[in-house]
Amino acid sequence: MSQGAKVWIDHWQQGQKSPKCDHVAEEVPLEILIDHCDGRQWQRQNIAVTMRTPGNEAHLGLGFLFTEAIIKQYQDVEYIDTRVETNRQRIIFRLKDEVRVDLQKLSRNLYISSSCGVCSKVSLDLVQQACPNKPLMQGILQPEILLKMPDTLRQAQETFGWTGGLHASGIFRLDGTLDILCEDVGRHNALDKAIGSAMMDEILPLHEYVLVLSGRASFELLQKAAMAGLACVVALGAPSSLAVELAKSMDMTLIGFLKQDSFNIYAGAHRIA
Amino acid sequence: MSQGAKVWIDHWQQGQKSPKCDHVAEEVPLEILIDHCDGRQWQRQNIAVTMRTPGNEAHLGLGFLFTEAIIKQYQDVEYIDTRVETNRQRIIFRLKDEVRVDLQKLSRNLYISSSCGVCSKVSLDLVQQACPNKPLMQGILQPEILLKMPDTLRQAQETFGWTGGLHASGIFRLDGTLDILCEDVGRHNALDKAIGSAMMDEILPLHEYVLVLSGRASFELLQKAAMAGLACVVALGAPSSLAVELAKSMDMTLIGFLKQDSFNIYAGAHRIA
Repeated sequence: MSQGAKVWIDHWQQGQKSPKCDHVAEEVPLEILIDHCDGRQWQRQNIAVTMRTPGNEAHLGLGFLFTEAIIKQYQDVEYIDTRVETNRQRIIFRLKDEVRVDLQKLSRNLYISSSCGVCSKVSLDLVQQACPNKPLMQGILQPEILLKMPDTLRQAQETFGWTGGLHASGIFRLDGTLDILCEDVGRHNALDKAIGSAMMDEILPLHEYVLVLSGRASFELLQKAAMAGLACVVALGAPSSLAVELAKSMDMTLIGFLKQDSFNIYAGAHRIA
Repeated sequence: MSQGAKVWIDHWQQGQKSPKCDHVAEEVPLEILIDHCDGRQWQRQNIAVTMRTPGNEAHLGLGFLFTEAIIKQYQDVEYIDTRVETNRQRIIFRLKDEVRVDLQKLSRNLYISSSCGVCSKVSLDLVQQACPNKPLMQGILQPEILLKMPDTLRQAQETFGWTGGLHASGIFRLDGTLDILCEDVGRHNALDKAIGSAMMDEILPLHEYVLVLSGRASFELLQKAAMAGLACVVALGAPSSLAVELAKSMDMTLIGFLKQDSFNIYAGAHRIA
C-alpha cells in the first residue's frame, strides 16, 4: 500500500512558518486497454484513463472492466500486461479468443467526464498549453483573512447543513469577501459552476481572487483553477501529489488543511504575507 | 440552491430504530451538448454526461466547456437551451457561427471515465439490466458488529494516517472480519480495486459480504456494488439521492453516517437485526 509521496511544505501556525516534510496521496494517470478479438482480427482498444493512486493496478483494471460490464468474469482474461514507461503507465488486458466485446454498448454506457481532466501522460505540459490565462495574482494574501475563509464558506453553505453531502467551491476576494459559492455532489461540478458563474459575471481571468475548496484538492481541480487564471487555491482537506506538482509547475499557490489556526503551504509561499 | 431531496429513513441509536425525515444531496444526470458549425454545416455534439446536483446548469455547462478548452470565452456562446424532459435533463450550448471546435482535440483531452457510471437517462433500469448477479444476502447484519466496522477500517488504513487524502473501500464478512481493503485518491478506483481483488480471489458474487465506504455513497458506487452482487452498502458519510433510489430499486440495504453508536438506514432495513 502506498505511503504517499513526500513533499516539503511550510506549516503555518500562530504567525510562524516552519518547514516540514509531509506525505501527500499519490495521484498518477493509468491507461486501461484491452486486446480483444472480434472473431476475425485482434484489436487494441483504449478503454479509460483514470487518475489513481499507484498500487493494485490489475485489481483496479479488472474491477473497472467488470463493473462497466465489459467482461463478465476473471476467466475472460487471458493475461494481464502492466507497463510502466517514463511518463505513461498502462495496463493491457488480453481477453480470451472467444470473448466478444460490444463496443457499441461501451460507447453508450461509458461517458466522457471531466474527472480525469487533461491527464493522458503526466500532462502538466498539456495544462500549460491549454491555459488561456496564466495564473496570476499581484496581491498578497493575509493569513488572518485566509483563516476566516472556512467559516465564511460553511456559513454560506446552507445546503451543507441540510445533507452533509455536498462539495463546495468558493471564489473569494483578497479582502475575504465571498463573491461566488457553488455546491454539488461532484467536486469538479462545484468548481465548473463557480467558474461558469464568473464567466457570466465577466470577471475572468480570476487574477485577484482566491479559490477555496471544501474538501481535497486533486489534479483536476487545480487544472480547472489554472484555466480560470486563479493563482491561489486553498483546500480544507489534503492535496494530491499531482495537484502539488501542477501548482509548482504553474507557479500557483496551493494551501491544504486550512483550519481556524493553521494551514500547510504546498507551493507558492511567496504569496502569503 | 438545492436543499436536497427528502427521504424517510430509520435512525438507529442504542438499539432503537426510529423513523425520521432526512435530506440527502440530489444527484441527477445532466447531458451537456453543443451545436456548432464547421464552416459548412451545423452539428450537434454530445460532450458529456455528468452526475450533478440540480441548479446552476448554465454555469455548470459553461464552466465545463471553458475548463475543457472547448470554448474560450462566454462570448463564444450564441444562446443556451435548457431542456428538462421526464427522464432526461439536457443543456445545449449554441455556439456562434464563427466559433470552431476542434473535435480531434476533444477526443484526445477528454477521457471516458467511470465517474458517471451508466447514467444517461436516470438509468436505474440500465443497472438492473447490466447486473450479472442480483444483489443478495441471506444473512442478517448485527448492529454491534456494524458499529465496529469503521474502527476496523480506519486501523487498517495505514496510508490514511500518513496523508489524510485517500478514500477506502472495505469488504467485510457478516462476522465483522475485514477481507479486502483498497485505497485510492478516487473513490470509484478504491471500489474497482476491491471488486477486482475479489474477482481474483474468486469470491464473486459477494452475496454474504458488506461493503464499507470511508466517505460518501454516490450512485456510481452503488452501481458498482450491485454489479458485484453486494446487497449491503455502508457509508461513513452521506448518501446521494440517486444512491438511495438505486438501493431501493434493487432491494439493497444502504446505511449512511455510520458512527460508533448510531447510523441511518436509507433502504433495506430488513437486513438489520
